[in-house]
Amino acid sequence: MTTIKENLVEMRRRFHRFPEVGFTEFITTYEIYKVLKQMDYTLYLGDDVLLRSARVGVPGPEMFTKSAERAKQYGVPEEFLEQVKEGTTGVVATLDTGVPGPHFAARFDIDGLPITESTDENHVPAGEKFISLHEGEMHACGHDGHITTGLFLADYINANKASLKGRFTIIFQPAEESVRGAKSVVEKGWLDDVDYFFSGHLGIRNLPVGTVSAGTTDFLASSKFDVKFTGKSAHAGVEPDAGNNSLLAAAAAALNLNAIARHGDGSTRINVGTMRAGSGRNVIADFALMEIETRGETTELNHYMYEKAKTVIQAAADMYENDVEIIGMGEAPDAACSAELITAVKEAVKNNRLITDLKDTLPLGASEDVTMMMERVLEKNGKATYMLFPFELKYGHHHPKFDLDESVLHVAISAYIDIVNSLMKRD
Amino acid sequence: MTTIKENLVEMRRRFHRFPEVGFTEFITTYEIYKVLKQMDYTLYLGDDVLLRSARVGVPGPEMFTKSAERAKQYGVPEEFLEQVKEGTTGVVATLDTGVPGPHFAARFDIDGLPITESTDENHVPAGEKFISLHEGEMHACGHDGHITTGLFLADYINANKASLKGRFTIIFQPAEESVRGAKSVVEKGWLDDVDYFFSGHLGIRNLPVGTVSAGTTDFLASSKFDVKFTGKSAHAGVEPDAGNNSLLAAAAAALNLNAIARHGDGSTRINVGTMRAGSGRNVIADFALMEIETRGETTELNHYMYEKAKTVIQAAADMYENDVEIIGMGEAPDAACSAELITAVKEAVKNNRLITDLKDTLPLGASEDVTMMMERVLEKNGKATYMLFPFELKYGHHHPKFDLDESVLHVAISAYIDIVNSLMKRD
Amino acid sequence: MTTIKENLVEMRRRFHRFPEVGFTEFITTYEIYKVLKQMDYTLYLGDDVLLRSARVGVPGPEMFTKSAERAKQYGVPEEFLEQVKEGTTGVVATLDTGVPGPHFAARFDIDGLPITESTDENHVPAGEKFISLHEGEMHACGHDGHITTGLFLADYINANKASLKGRFTIIFQPAEESVRGAKSVVEKGWLDDVDYFFSGHLGIRNLPVGTVSAGTTDFLASSKFDVKFTGKSAHAGVEPDAGNNSLLAAAAAALNLNAIARHGDGSTRINVGTMRAGSGRNVIADFALMEIETRGETTELNHYMYEKAKTVIQAAADMYENDVEIIGMGEAPDAACSAELITAVKEAVKNNRLITDLKDTLPLGASEDVTMMMERVLEKNGKATYMLFPFELKYGHHHPKFDLDESVLHVAISAYIDIVNSLMKRD
Amino acid sequence: MTTIKENLVEMRRRFHRFPEVGFTEFITTYEIYKVLKQMDYTLYLGDDVLLRSARVGVPGPEMFTKSAERAKQYGVPEEFLEQVKEGTTGVVATLDTGVPGPHFAARFDIDGLPITESTDENHVPAGEKFISLHEGEMHACGHDGHITTGLFLADYINANKASLKGRFTIIFQPAEESVRGAKSVVEKGWLDDVDYFFSGHLGIRNLPVGTVSAGTTDFLASSKFDVKFTGKSAHAGVEPDAGNNSLLAAAAAALNLNAIARHGDGSTRINVGTMRAGSGRNVIADFALMEIETRGETTELNHYMYEKAKTVIQAAADMYENDVEIIGMGEAPDAACSAELITAVKEAVKNNRLITDLKDTLPLGASEDVTMMMERVLEKNGKATYMLFPFELKYGHHHPKFDLDESVLHVAISAYIDIVNSLMKRD
Repeated sequence: MTTIKENLVEMRRRFHRFPEVGFTEFITTYEIYKVLKQMDYTLYLGDDVLLRSARVGVPGPEMFTKSAERAKQYGVPEEFLEQVKEGTTGVVATLDTGVPGPHFAARFDIDGLPITESTDENHVPAGEKFISLHEGEMHACGHDGHITTGLFLADYINANKASLKGRFTIIFQPAEESVRGAKSVVEKGWLDDVDYFFSGHLGIRNLPVGTVSAGTTDFLASSKFDVKFTGKSAHAGVEPDAGNNSLLAAAAAALNLNAIARHGDGSTRINVGTMRAGSGRNVIADFALMEIETRGETTELNHYMYEKAKTVIQAAADMYENDVEIIGMGEAPDAACSAELITAVKEAVKNNRLITDLKDTLPLGASEDVTMMMERVLEKNGKATYMLFPFELKYGHHHPKFDLDESVLHVAISAYIDIVNSLMKRD
Repeated sequence: MTTIKENLVEMRRRFHRFPEVGFTEFITTYEIYKVLKQMDYTLYLGDDVLLRSARVGVPGPEMFTKSAERAKQYGVPEEFLEQVKEGTTGVVATLDTGVPGPHFAARFDIDGLPITESTDENHVPAGEKFISLHEGEMHACGHDGHITTGLFLADYINANKASLKGRFTIIFQPAEESVRGAKSVVEKGWLDDVDYFFSGHLGIRNLPVGTVSAGTTDFLASSKFDVKFTGKSAHAGVEPDAGNNSLLAAAAAALNLNAIARHGDGSTRINVGTMRAGSGRNVIADFALMEIETRGETTELNHYMYEKAKTVIQAAADMYENDVEIIGMGEAPDAACSAELITAVKEAVKNNRLITDLKDTLPLGASEDVTMMMERVLEKNGKATYMLFPFELKYGHHHPKFDLDESVLHVAISAYIDIVNSLMKRD
Repeated sequence: MTTIKENLVEMRRRFHRFPEVGFTEFITTYEIYKVLKQMDYTLYLGDDVLLRSARVGVPGPEMFTKSAERAKQYGVPEEFLEQVKEGTTGVVATLDTGVPGPHFAARFDIDGLPITESTDENHVPAGEKFISLHEGEMHACGHDGHITTGLFLADYINANKASLKGRFTIIFQPAEESVRGAKSVVEKGWLDDVDYFFSGHLGIRNLPVGTVSAGTTDFLASSKFDVKFTGKSAHAGVEPDAGNNSLLAAAAAALNLNAIARHGDGSTRINVGTMRAGSGRNVIADFALMEIETRGETTELNHYMYEKAKTVIQAAADMYENDVEIIGMGEAPDAACSAELITAVKEAVKNNRLITDLKDTLPLGASEDVTMMMERVLEKNGKATYMLFPFELKYGHHHPKFDLDESVLHVAISAYIDIVNSLMKRD
Repeated sequence: MTTIKENLVEMRRRFHRFPEVGFTEFITTYEIYKVLKQMDYTLYLGDDVLLRSARVGVPGPEMFTKSAERAKQYGVPEEFLEQVKEGTTGVVATLDTGVPGPHFAARFDIDGLPITESTDENHVPAGEKFISLHEGEMHACGHDGHITTGLFLADYINANKASLKGRFTIIFQPAEESVRGAKSVVEKGWLDDVDYFFSGHLGIRNLPVGTVSAGTTDFLASSKFDVKFTGKSAHAGVEPDAGNNSLLAAAAAALNLNAIARHGDGSTRINVGTMRAGSGRNVIADFALMEIETRGETTELNHYMYEKAKTVIQAAADMYENDVEIIGMGEAPDAACSAELITAVKEAVKNNRLITDLKDTLPLGASEDVTMMMERVLEKNGKATYMLFPFELKYGHHHPKFDLDESVLHVAISAYIDIVNSLMKRD
């Protein structure tokens, strides 16, 4: 059936080796493009995929230089790099069957994480020699599996287009981590006339392979922001009193941010993920930078966290007589899956033998900027859902030993094929 | 009298432009060497200056590569760089008059600080266009003035050697900041048979130019150390409970370190100068690095601070279930100037018209690894003193707008010349 | 029908005036007893109600002396006070119809809170002159309404006993706040052969009067504990270094306890409700006491919080070289209402016109030691439920302006009457 | 020579038993009065001793009631209590020799501390059975010894008045601890025409008995203040988000106050001596009270600490959305002893055999409201000094095991007698 030369496991392991953090997926975009190029899709790259100005949390120019250099050495042609330069990564593939029918869209996220992968021999990618070749970057969330699923789905649709109806749009989205990329794709208009929208995640819930949920609850709304404290340096021995200590302002902020009261109405989260402060041991620190995120079970709960966070941060700055700046870096709303599409998915996969436990929904308990896409689809009267494909997690997502149970890839692709056949089959 | 082609101000401004942090003073060492080369000194470089293994707080190989590359572009010959490679910077210059007499030693420190210099037009080096050419590095403590004083003193001795007696050793020491370099020079034996040892500092006290103290009190004993917390990363949305947060461990440590009780017996200091923690916004931070120093008016008071600090750090690690490592990066004892040498200095400079206010001592209130050298001199029955040459400080040492009042350079060099003439004149 | 001379509102307002905190409900117990004494119940007091040794969080002797003295002045006879002395408060009332049938039990909690009631004229109890007469104590959770409902239910059963079957046990439980009293009643055996167990709460959810839930979800499991830090005092001016500061240990604990990571599996809570530390301004504090509670949506989640809390507390003590003691003061498990009893309640009240919105369940989101009773009933193969009777909350529970919407009292008592008539009517 | 029936040790032990904290020294005042009554002094009590409105840190009415009740039971007559009521404690005794001469004043402080005395048998007052009879109060600073010295001095002057000249004023001052009482005595005018002013302290420096300093340096200027945070209570389980947590505001303040940067110009101190926060375990704390003091080696350094403290406190309140009030409770400036009087003391005691090591000055390193008195004397052109009488301190001042080495009492009284004989002897 497929013209893809690799099998699912081979492909996933190949992508696993060159993880790239959001908006620097130059190699990844190129490899996706190469596979799709063999099929009959119309392909879009660069400024055709996303609206630059709607991106958030875009890395600085040195990151681009460094990652593009790496891609060049890997073998990505210079003219291709030119097309995706300055972080305009990702691919959109469209295919029109020519037969009237619904507009089907599916989205797969492609970025890695700034985590150094474990070299422990018991960690399968290390033991089996497909560990990340990029020091400090890792596919620790399973997006390598998402890319693989997306490419095999694209291949199936392409191979069977003669028996399908309607139109297909397959989105390989950059920079999902920290919910930065979806908005720029949405703003480009790709979701504006979609009838059925699908996305999903491998893992998340620690359940046996074969468990599938047709929909997802508990998307956490989220705000991402950077904080910059600016104080005053001074000689730490001669006149410590003359400094305005930014490191202490940031430390006080970090502790008290984590102490923001839990909310009676539902789940909230806060994380100060990184801190960089001070320039010398014997100098009072005159700057501190923090990367922070808040989340909430609802948009309101996230708003509660974000507003409280602003209060704490301002007060921490005042406490140490610092100036402070809060810079927005990303936003995701909460979301709800369409009940009709959940029902449709359940109907579609009911005879799938790989699916041993079919659930209406499972909770995500995390943020996903897919909610930006779902929101747009629903606004335009389309239907959207987000499926989960659990497996038994030995280590959690974002852990240096996180690993896919590769058998889940078959479950996911077979479910997508069932759905295409159920909803998009020519009459 | 002098063969040096530049005047004091020209030379100081030249050195001001290429500040280099401790153990990377490749350009600085080369420029000092070039000036001394024109005189009759025996010059020592590299492993002849210091004992590598006795250095502390040595930067990593990338720093060396980067700084050496910069030096090469500046014009330092490769063969010279080879001689001072891997942080064996600094110069020792010796001269024997051939006439019996005391062994006179003077030490000048040469390193810059990891501070970005202010570009404000009102900041003289910016306004007068001799601002640091090295982004992120700055002569913010006045060591450019120390180098200048040292070279003019060397020139004076060289020019007048026919009328002087005894031996001279002039030490241009690397890495004084964070008290890292002196020990390695001491361990090489340079201070073992010194009769009169001199060093000093420009600035420190905010007093009119012309004020000079023949000695210094209140050297703060100091310990420098790095701390590394190792925790466990986890997805900050899905399972924040699964992480062991290193950023919060470090924040709790920072606050509580600063809250260590003041001591009834005298002054103490603590500074967490830098913090680097966490690798991504949506990941629980699994590491945190801090550069810390403690100080005390006496060695005992510094010991009190250091022991309390260890307790706080271990408890902060326990609080967030982190492992923690404390790595020693430098030590300086307290010190006392020799009363006889203070008297000798006062006698020597009594007719100096540039000195309008001559004091026995002024307090330093800071740490200086010169105390390692003074300790060795005193152990070997030599005499040592450390002089201060104050000026009116518009901004404190280690501030991005710190600047020398250049007229103090004349005061310092004239005091040194008086001392040489008083103690080392042939009979 | 009723022999109670007062109406619901009168009675509630009467009880509102003399709130007494847990285990000191001497006046309240006496007033309940006086009302029940007019009916045909067998009444139990003192050591017949509860097992002393199974109480937790019992106040000290001065509290008993003070409250008993107040009760005496109020008019409670000395011989009655003797029966309920040392915190053996509460009443159990039993009635056997003589006709075979199920054993019906209902529980009402009777204690007030250590909160000073608002004197704002817009606060109804202040404006209408039935504000708390006890400085520092207040019925800020609605237990005055619970007592009233319980007494009117007792009256209805008593008045209609000729047409009812089975046995009735009505428990007026002391010290529900901080989940301290239920266990001691359970251990006395009162729940051991109950067939149908009912309890509930007025308010909780901010919904219109007329809303009733037949069951409740989201009982938070909880641990209550006291923490005592013991440090070392010292003169804060002469030798602050000689102290081991307990106040700072407690402050560090409080902040970091609140920063314990939220859990991915569900809701958690922590509260450091009180702190008392230090004995003089110029003395380093040598003790600190904190009253703390943790909660979790499940017993496991509460366990997570409690274990993390112990780690934080021990580390805070180590950080300031204090000894620390953690003293258990109360425990409540989570709980689940019996599905059959929820169905039975819905059937019983289906024609009740005061109930305008009947729900299966609503979430509590709090802890209730009634879960100890429910657990025992279920273990013994009885059925248990906990009903909510919401009203529109202008101020939350435990707020100095909390107030009952008194119209909810009619809803509650009418629901109870329907249930009695449905389940206990003689055939 | 003396008419006092007891010896020094007996008297000190008697006063040791009934320590009373500042402004509640009812028994102490009565006992001092009784001794002085046997001599020829004119005695002043109550509003004649101090200006009520100039007192700071006055306890609340319950404290007065409790302490007065205790005094009544001890045997203080009601009419006496009436004279010193509402905290107008202390005694001033004056004696005019009728012969022209200088005005000599001496001040002795009389208050105890809110510390529970150790019952360890090795603690002499416990082992020898003169431990404090007042639970929670203790003479832990040696003021029992000061009273004794003052009464023996009064007795000596009285017994020898026929050979003395000039006038004598002996002040037994209340409420020295937390520097609260001196100002009210100064404002009454007692120091306005004093020629020679003496005061001093037993202990302080850990040196052998026999060491005496004729003057004292390093008085720490100090500010005493109370802080009250007012937040909002809420049910800690149902809606923790609805509270504004005062306990956390106070905890954050306490930590960050202790982290105020040390000052390059000299010693500083800060102490949060006490905290009281929250009213119930399951209620978000809506208030917190803290008793705080700052100190500095100079008035300017204390000002630095106090200004920084205000910034921290306001920010901590803002951080947790609390209101905050800062209430001044006492102030002491720094002070300098008169060089002439130091010389005079040295001359006076030069043949005293009990004094084995006579020093010009020793450092205090603490605050003493005597500086208010010294300041007034100096303003009015009198001379003032403050002497130290060290002994070997097994436990520091303000420690539950602090104890006087009673042999120092002889040293102190003999020095005072020498001074009187030297300065006030009739010609």
